[in-house]
Amino acid sequence: MDNTSRRAKLEQMDFLSKLNSAIDVNNSLVCVGLDPTLDRLPKHLTDSKTPFSDFNKAIIDATADVVCAYKPNSAFYEARGAAGIEELKQTCLYIQENYPNIPIILDFKRGDTGNTNHNYAGFAFKYLGVDAVTIQPYQGQEAVQAYLDYKDKGVIILCRTSNPGAGEFQDLIVNGHKLYLEVAENVAKKWNSNGNCLLVVGATVPGEMAEVRELVGNDMVFLVPGVGAQGGSVQAIIKAGINDAGRGLVINSSRDILYQSSGEDFAEAARQRAIEVRDEINKYRGL
Amino acid sequence: MDNTSRRAKLEQMDFLSKLNSAIDVNNSLVCVGLDPTLDRLPKHLTDSKTPFSDFNKAIIDATADVVCAYKPNSAFYEARGAAGIEELKQTCLYIQENYPNIPIILDFKRGDTGNTNHNYAGFAFKYLGVDAVTIQPYQGQEAVQAYLDYKDKGVIILCRTSNPGAGEFQDLIVNGHKLYLEVAENVAKKWNSNGNCLLVVGATVPGEMAEVRELVGNDMVFLVPGVGAQGGSVQAIIKAGINDAGRGLVINSSRDILYQSSGEDFAEAARQRAIEVRDEINKYRGL
Repeated sequence: MDNTSRRAKLEQMDFLSKLNSAIDVNNSLVCVGLDPTLDRLPKHLTDSKTPFSDFNKAIIDATADVVCAYKPNSAFYEARGAAGIEELKQTCLYIQENYPNIPIILDFKRGDTGNTNHNYAGFAFKYLGVDAVTIQPYQGQEAVQAYLDYKDKGVIILCRTSNPGAGEFQDLIVNGHKLYLEVAENVAKKWNSNGNCLLVVGATVPGEMAEVRELVGNDMVFLVPGVGAQGGSVQAIIKAGINDAGRGLVINSSRDILYQSSGEDFAEAARQRAIEVRDEINKYRGL
Repeated sequence: MDNTSRRAKLEQMDFLSKLNSAIDVNNSLVCVGLDPTLDRLPKHLTDSKTPFSDFNKAIIDATADVVCAYKPNSAFYEARGAAGIEELKQTCLYIQENYPNIPIILDFKRGDTGNTNHNYAGFAFKYLGVDAVTIQPYQGQEAVQAYLDYKDKGVIILCRTSNPGAGEFQDLIVNGHKLYLEVAENVAKKWNSNGNCLLVVGATVPGEMAEVRELVGNDMVFLVPGVGAQGGSVQAIIKAGINDAGRGLVINSSRDILYQSSGEDFAEAARQRAIEVRDEINKYRGL
């Protein structure tokens, strides 16, 4: 198959097929979070007019055969306004043109009513052309239907987050279990009629991830923040969340991979760290 | 006082002081939601290179003495990518330069962990320079501290939203009352140590607003969507939410004001409708 046919075929794949294919081809559950900040970029890039996309392109070239997904976090680009959004667009385009087999997750954690979500979905799926987004559960399924209706796109709903104060509302008991389990249950049983829902489940408390896996069954994929810089243990979270196919987890690492070196070897250093993280995870996948 | 001194003084005012001053000077609780969409703009604007900011500037010029705040919704600009963000910036700048007494609320309903929220806050408060933002409660106070620390900015937390399916999680019983009341209580008693918190409380069920007012006391200001296009009754919500000073509510209307006419008289028609809405509200404020 030539490259044009290959890209056309990849563009027709739904998010989960594309994700699982990348997991298998690269033998990796590692997602690299593309979260550049000016004060942590290598010095030789900070004078560029496009520091974020220069940085990202080098990171992507160095890691595209080691990851299952890329996850740019919208906040880091928005902080630089329209210029930052343009660099986010260039980053997505670079992946789509050069590594069309690697899905892009836009981490933007929006939530609003239907009409507004329709516009946010347009930003993600039409303007940027990403494969999946992260969203907020608080306004319920009816509000997020605007995302769910994109059958071929992944909709990744915040369930259990990894920040220290996450329990303030998420741990409150509703209907006999904690709120984040209620979110997990509703997503698995009601929201997922198009089979395109995933959950954000943090890595900081593996027992919680095991509970969510027990509740939602084998097929639901979890996006897992909190490994590396946020301190989650790899072995424990793999054991808690992996599914029968040795998949079911997309384990994100951002700072721990991006900033291994502040010299001209930053991309190679990121690659080495991504390989270490991938191999550490694979030790416990039981493949 | 000359204009430069006047602007410098206004820039030093905290959000709530600026808001209350605008409420009193314009005798209005009306906030106009600046939510342009290409398919609803007057025909003569759709060929412009900057259709949103052209539209907004005309609406702003026509309504700046009738409103207490403007509320651009980020989604509508993001849908057009970097160009849309640039027009959002131009819109904010236009208000800041020409009507510095009118506060700007950026409706962007983000939620994330601290480090990411730091960047979202940078987008809102530094890049755009707005006076307040709307945010999600799901990750708890610890996560949103990055916003709360901007003492002079308003942080408007989703409490009870106006979408039809809002109750899926918000109506669940926790600690003996509904989740949205738990959010209201925590915000009022714990999050508000800088006195810069507000709540989003929808207009569709006035009894719910009355409960929130009862719980949080007289001082907390509510941002109220759902009047007009979403069908909330003006009289009932004023009765339920107004505080002893005849303030305490910022009542947003977007489509119902913006799209009264699709002709060249669109701005004048919007002004007339904004005056009607303001006067309808003032009938029940008991001033």
